[in-house]
Amino acid sequence: MTEEELLRKGERIDDLEVKGFRIIQNPSFFCFGMDAVLLSSFAGTKKKDRVIDLGTGTGIIPLLLLAKEKCDTCIGLELQEAVAEMAARSVQLNHAENRCRICQGDICKVQEIFPAASFDGVTCNPPYIQEQSGLHNDETARNLARHEIAVRLEDVVRAAAYLLVPGGTFSMVHKPFRIPEILELMRKYRLEPKRMQLVQPYTDKEPNMVLLEAVRDGKPWLTVHPSLVVYEKDGGYTQELLKWYGKA
Amino acid sequence: MTEEELLRKGERIDDLEVKGFRIIQNPSFFCFGMDAVLLSSFAGTKKKDRVIDLGTGTGIIPLLLLAKEKCDTCIGLELQEAVAEMAARSVQLNHAENRCRICQGDICKVQEIFPAASFDGVTCNPPYIQEQSGLHNDETARNLARHEIAVRLEDVVRAAAYLLVPGGTFSMVHKPFRIPEILELMRKYRLEPKRMQLVQPYTDKEPNMVLLEAVRDGKPWLTVHPSLVVYEKDGGYTQELLKWYGKA
Repeated sequence: MTEEELLRKGERIDDLEVKGFRIIQNPSFFCFGMDAVLLSSFAGTKKKDRVIDLGTGTGIIPLLLLAKEKCDTCIGLELQEAVAEMAARSVQLNHAENRCRICQGDICKVQEIFPAASFDGVTCNPPYIQEQSGLHNDETARNLARHEIAVRLEDVVRAAAYLLVPGGTFSMVHKPFRIPEILELMRKYRLEPKRMQLVQPYTDKEPNMVLLEAVRDGKPWLTVHPSLVVYEKDGGYTQELLKWYGKA
Repeated sequence: MTEEELLRKGERIDDLEVKGFRIIQNPSFFCFGMDAVLLSSFAGTKKKDRVIDLGTGTGIIPLLLLAKEKCDTCIGLELQEAVAEMAARSVQLNHAENRCRICQGDICKVQEIFPAASFDGVTCNPPYIQEQSGLHNDETARNLARHEIAVRLEDVVRAAAYLLVPGGTFSMVHKPFRIPEILELMRKYRLEPKRMQLVQPYTDKEPNMVLLEAVRDGKPWLTVHPSLVVYEKDGGYTQELLKWYGKA
């Protein structure tokens, strides 16, 4: 298929700037952010790992993992049919059909879709915002991606624990204010937190992201990496951030 | 009593460099470190708070809290009689007997010493090192201060929860590798983690300390402060660190 045939109304193609990989996005839904890029660099997946990305959205994380050679094959699981279909077209766009598969399905029902302990790596960039009421009528693609409407943190952690082999890694990005809850849930499901890294916009600003990796049935010992600072005082990217983007 | 009368063999007097406060230390036991100084600055105690420092050792934290006017009165609880007696002499040295009391007693038995919910603030710089065997014959003052021989992390957290009023703060310094366990224990005892700050020797080095504050029956929301970096590349202290020491 030609590029034009792969695109639908309102969509555009963006260059991922890694080995020529590109992605289809619809700006009126959502576009990937720095969190997805940092998670794909942070994730400790190895080449031979069978990896699944939960709530893959545009498929950004599977595509970046493949582009960065952090796994040979990857599945992206996405609840929303229209979004999954767009992600599948991004896979086609990159001629990666033999290495990446997009599955439409619900994180809360992974046990109906995949066997237990069938993956070596699980990644997830989940919705960050807690729903206080439990009621939310605005189920747009954007809201489902950002708010815990269709999936809560505990559902994600439970699914990761179910999918991973012992020793398998669960890599996630989230908001720092929920660290206590995240770590507690991981341990509840026998995902031992092993690596953590905070991301700060500036050296003197509070972190606004946390990268976490847990190991299924791992021994307790958390390595905390030096905090990643995104911007220099003058507003330019730091050398360290550029390294994460593969540009330094 | 004169200074000479307050000193015993092997002891020396060190200046805390805050409002003329000084401390008696015996270098063959242990001397206070940066962790105690940072904890005393980090602790969110307020002037009117009734504060207790668990495992106070030389009494460094009560003395610094008083010197920095972070509380009006403070109790220091110390297991080892000889160490408690030395700390009491430091209180005398600073003519602070009416504001600070050193109690000899066991953190594991606080309920026999103090009524429940009798403090607004609890601080602790506990032993960091886990004892794998549970057997440890070398019960020197130095080892008791550094290893979890006489008191384990859970004992400290349980004691803090018992001593605090609802809304009271528990401030602690520890090693980053135990963050998951610490946060889990705090929540187990209804001490909700509210503030966290990592301390890194250099911008590109892993943090080697974590400062944590929990609130008794607090609502879940962790504020993570920007990581505190101790040294500039050239080895001098950072401006930020000097602020914590009250020198910038």
